[in-house]
Amino acid sequence: MSVTIRPAEPDDVPILVRFVHELAAYEREPESCRLTEAQLDAALFGPSPAVFATVARVGGEVAGVAIWFLTYSTWTGVHGIHLEDLYVSPDHRRHGVARALLADLARTCVDRGYERLEWAVLDWNTPALDFYATLSSTPQDGWTTHRVDGDALQALAG
Amino acid sequence: MSVTIRPAEPDDVPILVRFVHELAAYEREPESCRLTEAQLDAALFGPSPAVFATVARVGGEVAGVAIWFLTYSTWTGVHGIHLEDLYVSPDHRRHGVARALLADLARTCVDRGYERLEWAVLDWNTPALDFYATLSSTPQDGWTTHRVDGDALQALAG
Repeated sequence: MSVTIRPAEPDDVPILVRFVHELAAYEREPESCRLTEAQLDAALFGPSPAVFATVARVGGEVAGVAIWFLTYSTWTGVHGIHLEDLYVSPDHRRHGVARALLADLARTCVDRGYERLEWAVLDWNTPALDFYATLSSTPQDGWTTHRVDGDALQALAG
Repeated sequence: MSVTIRPAEPDDVPILVRFVHELAAYEREPESCRLTEAQLDAALFGPSPAVFATVARVGGEVAGVAIWFLTYSTWTGVHGIHLEDLYVSPDHRRHGVARALLADLARTCVDRGYERLEWAVLDWNTPALDFYATLSSTPQDGWTTHRVDGDALQALAG
């Protein structure tokens, strides 16, 4: 069956949140995911949204989702896209849904003059790494993301 | 001398761009940085900006800058800040300028209910890593950023 891609609509929020929680479980951190439908609805459809979602449908069903936001590189001088979550429901895997979602984001980049499409991968996630290798993605080896949150964030804020 | 922090203004664009290029040289990739003043001015001060800059002044001079954008975590359900560039000019180092810029971003996070302040560090940049350790930042070991750009981006777009 063919895959169709469209921007998420408010009615998609429940399945988006369910898929985000399923992805967190796959990533072995189900308890780290606290996303609620009210939060995601406000983030995607409130005033001046700074996060976006795309939905892949197969045979009338939502088969996969991409949740993303804009980056900015001071090396390229233009925006890019950071793909925060990419998820395909288990019964729709191996039918090109993930590739269709990524291709749609790549087209958005090209159409808008963005130069980078990026995402973070867990180093043990071999199936994902094998798939991303087919896209000629470049691992940013040598760079590590550092995070300040929780008590450290409060302490730094002073 | 005391450090004062304020949002960047259009008149700061030339020194922001100079500092970005100096940072790229420090990061051993001067040729990778193509940022122009026109690009940064449009990104910071055009309609609906999605990138922001903060300036630290010491004795009337711009001593350091932070360039940043918003992230969104589907685990926390709220926005965060990604610090794209943090730079202090050589003659103003070791006087708390970097810490003042980071503390200001941490306050922005706390004030707005954001839960994460993040940035990427080169693994060989020991002075930076030593400094970030004093902030109790957490390296996101086990995650690697993947990037599609150039020909691979065009190919994926189809």
